[in-house]
Amino acid sequence: MSFPTSDALRDQAARLGFTLDDDLAEAMHTAVTGAEPAIAALRDRPRALDLDADPADGDRWVRRDRTAPAVGNLPDDEEGIGGLLAAYAAGERTPEDEVARSLADLRATHEALNCTIRFLDDRATAAAAESARRWRDGTARPLEGVPFGVKDVIDVAGVPTTAGSWCHGDTPAAASAEVVRRLEAAGAIPVSKDATTEFAVGGPHPPRFGPTRNPWNRDRWAGGSSTGSAAAVAAGAVPFALGTDVGGSVRLPSAWTGLTGLKPTAGAISRVGVVPLSWTAETVGPIARSAADVARVFDVLAGTDDRDPRSWRPEPPIGVLDRSVGNAPTDVRGLRIAVPGGALTELCDAEVRAGVDALVAELVDAGAEVVPAEIPGAAAALAIGYLLVFTEAATLHRVDRDRWGDYDPVVVRRISQGITTPAQDYLRAQQFRVELQRELDAVFAVADLVVVPTCPSTAPRLDGTVVVDGVEYPLYAAQSRSTMLGNLTGVPGLAVPTGVAADGCPISAQLIARPHAEATALRAAHVFQSRTGHHRRRPVDVTRKTSSR
Amino acid sequence: MSFPTSDALRDQAARLGFTLDDDLAEAMHTAVTGAEPAIAALRDRPRALDLDADPADGDRWVRRDRTAPAVGNLPDDEEGIGGLLAAYAAGERTPEDEVARSLADLRATHEALNCTIRFLDDRATAAAAESARRWRDGTARPLEGVPFGVKDVIDVAGVPTTAGSWCHGDTPAAASAEVVRRLEAAGAIPVSKDATTEFAVGGPHPPRFGPTRNPWNRDRWAGGSSTGSAAAVAAGAVPFALGTDVGGSVRLPSAWTGLTGLKPTAGAISRVGVVPLSWTAETVGPIARSAADVARVFDVLAGTDDRDPRSWRPEPPIGVLDRSVGNAPTDVRGLRIAVPGGALTELCDAEVRAGVDALVAELVDAGAEVVPAEIPGAAAALAIGYLLVFTEAATLHRVDRDRWGDYDPVVVRRISQGITTPAQDYLRAQQFRVELQRELDAVFAVADLVVVPTCPSTAPRLDGTVVVDGVEYPLYAAQSRSTMLGNLTGVPGLAVPTGVAADGCPISAQLIARPHAEATALRAAHVFQSRTGHHRRRPVDVTRKTSSR
Repeated sequence: MSFPTSDALRDQAARLGFTLDDDLAEAMHTAVTGAEPAIAALRDRPRALDLDADPADGDRWVRRDRTAPAVGNLPDDEEGIGGLLAAYAAGERTPEDEVARSLADLRATHEALNCTIRFLDDRATAAAAESARRWRDGTARPLEGVPFGVKDVIDVAGVPTTAGSWCHGDTPAAASAEVVRRLEAAGAIPVSKDATTEFAVGGPHPPRFGPTRNPWNRDRWAGGSSTGSAAAVAAGAVPFALGTDVGGSVRLPSAWTGLTGLKPTAGAISRVGVVPLSWTAETVGPIARSAADVARVFDVLAGTDDRDPRSWRPEPPIGVLDRSVGNAPTDVRGLRIAVPGGALTELCDAEVRAGVDALVAELVDAGAEVVPAEIPGAAAALAIGYLLVFTEAATLHRVDRDRWGDYDPVVVRRISQGITTPAQDYLRAQQFRVELQRELDAVFAVADLVVVPTCPSTAPRLDGTVVVDGVEYPLYAAQSRSTMLGNLTGVPGLAVPTGVAADGCPISAQLIARPHAEATALRAAHVFQSRTGHHRRRPVDVTRKTSSR
Repeated sequence: MSFPTSDALRDQAARLGFTLDDDLAEAMHTAVTGAEPAIAALRDRPRALDLDADPADGDRWVRRDRTAPAVGNLPDDEEGIGGLLAAYAAGERTPEDEVARSLADLRATHEALNCTIRFLDDRATAAAAESARRWRDGTARPLEGVPFGVKDVIDVAGVPTTAGSWCHGDTPAAASAEVVRRLEAAGAIPVSKDATTEFAVGGPHPPRFGPTRNPWNRDRWAGGSSTGSAAAVAAGAVPFALGTDVGGSVRLPSAWTGLTGLKPTAGAISRVGVVPLSWTAETVGPIARSAADVARVFDVLAGTDDRDPRSWRPEPPIGVLDRSVGNAPTDVRGLRIAVPGGALTELCDAEVRAGVDALVAELVDAGAEVVPAEIPGAAAALAIGYLLVFTEAATLHRVDRDRWGDYDPVVVRRISQGITTPAQDYLRAQQFRVELQRELDAVFAVADLVVVPTCPSTAPRLDGTVVVDGVEYPLYAAQSRSTMLGNLTGVPGLAVPTGVAADGCPISAQLIARPHAEATALRAAHVFQSRTGHHRRRPVDVTRKTSSR
């Protein structure tokens, strides 16, 4: 094998119009060198000269029709969003009160955690008045008057979208992203643009807005990239928020702040109006306290959008909250669970693994059956996923390459790896998506749900390190190991809190279901949460505590 | 700009597992250098950091629903396939007679032109007996007993597929390609595996089987890559044949042998069971004498196949031969025709351009209107299309890279250009597809049909040169200039013979219609052919003529 020198990579980048200084060329060379063994191993897996080698095959899997039982009718008197709606309906609270409370709590939370980029007071106050009228009129919609946060890579009409960067956010968005439009059409009210790592790919310390602290421990990071969204929900300022997930960016901050967060099936939710990072791997996803709340929000978000070229939805559409199937389940009789090991549990803290075991035991107690299954290809998912993501990100950000000096250096270091990716490797990585899907097909032939750790540790420290079984690791070595599987294949994954570790921070398990079978994961999580209380645990009120700074 | 040296490209290829000798590295460097200005110009066209930059957008265009009038009911007493079916129905001829005649003529034609790789006597004879029974029983299907040729990159069950190469064809195909299966299910009978340039991308002299001569002039080439298919139909041995088209490989040999050939909309015809060259650009297409015959065959071929990841068809399906719309038209009143110039008519022989003008004049006489429209992006279509095709071909053929020494050197020289393509360029080229589609959207907003030369000259000489206005050019400089537009965007194109040039060889015009509006092109061509006789002109009977060798 002839591996390119730092100078050779710089020459290749120069041909493509990128001017790299010595440090960046060296960093890029180090990163590409680090990724090479995984890519070289992939090259050694031959693909036949065959139509089946078409990289587009990876999209086909997630547009196959799937059947999954709906979550069913949720009780109106549950906690969270259901409880709020019940209070509105009973006249015990008004959307005006709740939006005002949410905005006030957000400000206090932001002061403690740095979780908000923009407060949407005027817009939210006007919407609250309209929601109040609708509750009085009897024309309330499914999420009428429920405030929510929006990661600041997602457009809200009339508000600039910064993507956490000095280089974005000069002009107000002309229209809301489809996900925001859908939620507003269902009566929900955006109250904030939430902090994000720069372009949803940068480090914990974005230069423009700084780090977002974790409400469970302010010396920890809230996780990325949907940092502010998770922090605001975890602190109780909003019932739910929208994040985006390209390698775990909904599920990881959910895990690290004790929340329930869904990366849906690829194509299930429109991405129109979202600053893109990766066409292949990215989805929008909701972050909330409980599976029931995620189900309520996902039911509104999901649907086809012809403007998103990778948008699709099984026909007939699967209603996650289909009330005709009766009430939400209280058991999971007949559910078959796979609990694979290998790369999915390696480099994973014992407390996190114990949380997974406890969740599985609870589901077994509720009628589920554990079946044996492994996903050997998962070991390569992280490196191959990053190859796809960084290559697509570098292509997207090429237009601003003269402004990379103003980017978070972590963004530049990460996505510059994608500048010189050979198309052969990119296409081979797309083919690998299909190979992983085949492995999952085999698992889903015997199992309905796969349960793995969401991430190997509790929340990272603000210095970008995590601790696994007492040993310190750099952040990127120990995150996204189980989440990238979903981004690469398109399969949905739900982060579910499983308790609080000895360090006082939350741990999490990820429930992975078949494409378009989000309801299977949501039903199981709902049963688990109905039987346990982990999703109800809250951090100490951050707004009353002095910052540790 | 820092352009890689020959050694640098060889190093890049070595990293990917390709060992290039000095000559090939030099040839590759020359080819990549030649393509660089077009690619560099493309890089300079900025794309916003936006979801619209998703390369998958190019697939969305061709899956949009389109409405186009069907060709309508064709008279049973027409020439070609219609006449043959009428003769069967009247008991004037039997499928046994016709298949025996076809096989005998094929053998004689092959002796003169070298157009056939394998004769399917046993299989065809058995099928003819079954067809004869069905005609007697009154259970005849739409193409009952019609013999046809199959380009030898398309599987026929039980028969090896050579792809024209020493490196393929060791084992019989387990199943027929979907296109063959559909035709057989409609009663048609494959009688031959037809000569092809190696892997549908090599030069006129494939090392294993040698060149296919042109029935109009045996010192000329029948064109590529569907060489044998066009030669056999033009010589009258079969009424139609199946080719594949990745840059013009159905339309160019049709043009050079006086035939009507269709590259359908991307995704309209299944590619399952076809040796792939390019996932993005390739389609299967029928070659026949008339638009009526092409319509009959396309009507059987078109349809969704879930096994082809890029297969789709507008819903409701457009029946090209929908009999409910009445008889096939005799005029084209209201049809708006664009006749763009620029790159589409540059480097084009005056006789070819006169043929286009005559076709347009005939359609205007039949009620059409000419509207002004240009497609500026067409100038870059050839270079960008080759970048996509060669990159995908190199990825596909990587599995056999140790056998490239046995490939046609033209294959290796062409596809080796794709070994080191940067993913950024590949993805940018995919985005360019969308930009070209937008240009065509603008054209199709004012026009129903675009008429351009199919290719700039009459058939190439066997030495691989063509003559344009008396000046000799190398083959690849002067072919695919108008055809690649359709491969890159997915738009359908129909080659229609417009007469015979002073050199005694046919000339051709290409009719380009909206995605999934093949019927618009077929109707117009049918009207043109009903009013003129060009498609009925035949070469001197090659089987009676001494070879010029």
